[in-house]
Amino acid sequence: MNYEKSIATKIIALETAALKKWNNGNPSGYLDLYTPDFTYFDPFQEKRLDGFDKIEALYEEVSGKVRVDNYEMIDPRVQATGEMAVLTYNLLSYTEETVYKWNCTEVYKLVANEWKIIHNHWSLIKPV
Amino acid sequence: MNYEKSIATKIIALETAALKKWNNGNPSGYLDLYTPDFTYFDPFQEKRLDGFDKIEALYEEVSGKVRVDNYEMIDPRVQATGEMAVLTYNLLSYTEETVYKWNCTEVYKLVANEWKIIHNHWSLIKPV
Repeated sequence: MNYEKSIATKIIALETAALKKWNNGNPSGYLDLYTPDFTYFDPFQEKRLDGFDKIEALYEEVSGKVRVDNYEMIDPRVQATGEMAVLTYNLLSYTEETVYKWNCTEVYKLVANEWKIIHNHWSLIKPV
Repeated sequence: MNYEKSIATKIIALETAALKKWNNGNPSGYLDLYTPDFTYFDPFQEKRLDGFDKIEALYEEVSGKVRVDNYEMIDPRVQATGEMAVLTYNLLSYTEETVYKWNCTEVYKLVANEWKIIHNHWSLIKPV
């Protein structure tokens, strides 16, 4: 499906740009993509975070604190319809001391002709 | 949005039926919903599983072994377009010995007029 390929290229480019900023302590790339009804899971929250304001507050706390020296986005894959798409990949984030291994799910939606993120789920690989 | 509400009702009913079977050691409810291009994350895999055959093999191993006595599906939420939808919820699974706390993301897609699952991401709450 050609339309799926073209959507995939766009979405992976958006994600990569946001991730590069994030790795330098700057959450603005992701915040620019999140919609008002954004929902969020990560391994540190007791339950799902709902709404842009909550994620903005969370990211303000970590702003300037994240420092990833190098990363590998493994096998990004996009499953899409015309208006909605799910991007999944494994991520290796290398810092001076350690490597963090992640599963990542990002759900994108076409809003006024731009791809935005409506849901994000981060989890650690094999924490158990 | 009324169409979103109607999609939400359908999808939560499908998920609940599959989950109830799962909790009795029967993965067939989920397997009936997964598409051939299904993708999957859980906390026990080294990387994403791609394709129906892989998940079928994994579920064959656990078939008959899961026994959840009681569960709570907390605050299920559906964000939808006409052809695709993401269901998210927190899940508490009670067994005799312990309670497992989960984050769950399910991406549904309309295939030949039926809602099917194209992606699933399970992770444990606060494993770190």
